[in-house]
Amino acid sequence: MTGLGDRLAAVVGAEHVLADEDVRAAYEHDWKGTRGGAALLAVRPGSTGEVAGVLRCCSEAGVAVVPRGGNTGLAGGALPRGGEVVLSLERLRAVGPVEVADALVEAEAGVTLARLQEHVRPEGLDFGVDLGARDAATVGGMIATNAGGIHAFRHGTMRAQVRGIEAVLADGTVVRRLTGVLKDNAGYDLPGLLAGSEGTLAVVTRARLRLVPFHRARATVLVALASVDAGVRLLGVLLARVPALDAVEIFGTRALELVCASACLPRPFPRPYPAYVLVEAAAHDDPLDQLVAALDHTDAVDSVVAADAAGRERLWAYRELMPEAMGRQAPSVHFDICLPRSGIAVFEKAIQQVLRSEAAGAGAAWLGHLGDGNLHVGIWGLAGDRAALERRLLQLTVSLGGSVSAEHGVGTRKVHMLPWAREPADLAVMQALKRALDPQGILNPGVLFPAAPSS
Amino acid sequence: MTGLGDRLAAVVGAEHVLADEDVRAAYEHDWKGTRGGAALLAVRPGSTGEVAGVLRCCSEAGVAVVPRGGNTGLAGGALPRGGEVVLSLERLRAVGPVEVADALVEAEAGVTLARLQEHVRPEGLDFGVDLGARDAATVGGMIATNAGGIHAFRHGTMRAQVRGIEAVLADGTVVRRLTGVLKDNAGYDLPGLLAGSEGTLAVVTRARLRLVPFHRARATVLVALASVDAGVRLLGVLLARVPALDAVEIFGTRALELVCASACLPRPFPRPYPAYVLVEAAAHDDPLDQLVAALDHTDAVDSVVAADAAGRERLWAYRELMPEAMGRQAPSVHFDICLPRSGIAVFEKAIQQVLRSEAAGAGAAWLGHLGDGNLHVGIWGLAGDRAALERRLLQLTVSLGGSVSAEHGVGTRKVHMLPWAREPADLAVMQALKRALDPQGILNPGVLFPAAPSS
Repeated sequence: MTGLGDRLAAVVGAEHVLADEDVRAAYEHDWKGTRGGAALLAVRPGSTGEVAGVLRCCSEAGVAVVPRGGNTGLAGGALPRGGEVVLSLERLRAVGPVEVADALVEAEAGVTLARLQEHVRPEGLDFGVDLGARDAATVGGMIATNAGGIHAFRHGTMRAQVRGIEAVLADGTVVRRLTGVLKDNAGYDLPGLLAGSEGTLAVVTRARLRLVPFHRARATVLVALASVDAGVRLLGVLLARVPALDAVEIFGTRALELVCASACLPRPFPRPYPAYVLVEAAAHDDPLDQLVAALDHTDAVDSVVAADAAGRERLWAYRELMPEAMGRQAPSVHFDICLPRSGIAVFEKAIQQVLRSEAAGAGAAWLGHLGDGNLHVGIWGLAGDRAALERRLLQLTVSLGGSVSAEHGVGTRKVHMLPWAREPADLAVMQALKRALDPQGILNPGVLFPAAPSS
Repeated sequence: MTGLGDRLAAVVGAEHVLADEDVRAAYEHDWKGTRGGAALLAVRPGSTGEVAGVLRCCSEAGVAVVPRGGNTGLAGGALPRGGEVVLSLERLRAVGPVEVADALVEAEAGVTLARLQEHVRPEGLDFGVDLGARDAATVGGMIATNAGGIHAFRHGTMRAQVRGIEAVLADGTVVRRLTGVLKDNAGYDLPGLLAGSEGTLAVVTRARLRLVPFHRARATVLVALASVDAGVRLLGVLLARVPALDAVEIFGTRALELVCASACLPRPFPRPYPAYVLVEAAAHDDPLDQLVAALDHTDAVDSVVAADAAGRERLWAYRELMPEAMGRQAPSVHFDICLPRSGIAVFEKAIQQVLRSEAAGAGAAWLGHLGDGNLHVGIWGLAGDRAALERRLLQLTVSLGGSVSAEHGVGTRKVHMLPWAREPADLAVMQALKRALDPQGILNPGVLFPAAPSS
């Protein structure tokens, strides 16, 4: 180990090789405090060249590497399992000038989403993906996990934002293609393959990102509905009639109750409803009339229209504080699934059924990005077999045409789910691609694929 | 050979193995009449299982396979080079029910774009990619070439439409993942990798495709501009102010002259202008006011607004008949490039400069999908070194941050351009991926990668 430590110090400088147990500790926990295994050491290169040097050293030493972005992952993909080098991209923080005419910007892997937003918005442009962890989540981590968030139905997930990429292969080779154009059929699409590969194929160091218009004129409405189905129908109407549609978030009675209680928010309606949808439209000109006119064609039972920025913030508070309020219930099962529209109400009914068969202390709350069918569900107080329940509900998800992992990725925690989601021939293709780019298997072992038995 | 022919006949039926020279001939020419090499035979499987059987036979015999869709390619990617089996997907024509709530449809590889449009439009949905060759181009070929067309800036290229895929590997293994959801982070993205792989990694047999709203309310305006730069600025204004923006096509003086002459169309304006932009917006409610209001913020010098469907058709005729009018000049060099917005006027000036240095008979015409920077340029009557000119203008394209192949792909005709566009390490990654999925190298040899020297 000291041999490798010395070689890494020669690449990045001794102060960026963290070997002491207490200093390393920060790199062995995720943001929720979950502890991974003990890393061999953590290393913080300051440039693409240094990342290449680190990977060359590790590859020569046959030591596994765990790439790490903003540490906001929820699937354990950036936690060491034991004995790896944690490669933190936190020092790669350069961001290029906003290319206004082309609506592009180049950013290094360690740039946070919030910094990217601050950088581009003064130019009238915005980044197409937004999510709650914006202050910590980084460009590199968001690409590696193909982050989704609230605007995916409008602008696509992270994969759709990456127009060019620079990454380092396991053996230290730098692969670079930073062309920024939309139509680019000159061979295989490397950015698309690396997006969502969770650090198992290469370490992303830089990306050329497309930008979208930043719309200051916003209209926000919270709609109450008599059923989840009515929410799904409402989505169809909005997608057809409101080109400026920017967010369509759904949540259930229990999630609203929890956030009102835990964050001391006033109830938005005099009585509870089975489902609520928070709708936002954003355009150059005020989209409120367009939005309200479209809502006339839906089964909205009641609604609150935000009159100004403060009102919009009040409506968004219900949604933004909800994950924390749900987290306080310490759910023993959590789902991050994506369902076809036809499957959303089916899945919600299945959860109700679970609760009816459980003891009185059991509860569940859910919210979701309705625009793309991504539901987050927490279930707590379960007496029954948690693993069996997870398996049953995820197999239901697959049978409905959905995905067992929507935006949180697979990491180490969901590796056992992949065979429910993908056929053996499909998994074999994944393994062939992995072997092609990382024949030694040193990049993030245990992520996406089962860990090899320890020697 | 007869051994293989018999084995293939056992898989697909003797009537679908075409070995006679005159019957095979149709599979040895592209739609422009260009002849490829002599195929060993052509085979027309009728199902995914039969495609798998064909590939198993060819793989065992070590015979190369050229997959073929609607034969509308422009880069020679579906033409035999000599001695291959041409695998036509024309009999895979099943299309599933339109899943209206989920805005999805499943289609086999041989379904034409026009058929897909006819199938989904009565349900109020549309396919996100549209292009002139719609009557012949097929789903499989459009995926293999990552087709672009006129709506790419709004809905993305073909890659963005493919939510699930079924394909057959070189050895006959069927790989299937037909999940239809937008957020699906359960491992590597197979549809994205196969899109644009031009039949070199697998043969696409079926896809699950996302649909977009079909908007009947359309507004179309032809705008005259004092410069190409003014056209690029106009695009920026439209993207910011017209969420319903559906098409933004640009063309130059000469292209308009050619189409007016060859198709006997009246000139749209009393005098010529350096650039014209055809703009269309499509929404649920009439978007004309929105569009006209946005045009007030541009440098439009003159404009023609279509008053009704017939007027829209008249305006589109200029654009749709233009490729044929340009083709009649028999250009000796043709570019299909994609440029950042900042590069469009630069490239156009470079063409003018070429013409100034050429003899009097030289001419050039260009049109483009301005929304995504995709230009099609034909140059004719050249006295100078055609290959040198091509190389110079494509290296300019790369230096401007553009792509040497926008929507036509690489095929066999542009293989020599790839080293201008991609670095050696990047090309090595492509080759590693190719070897991983097609270790024998039997899928479309000579496409994307230089053909191995004949033995």
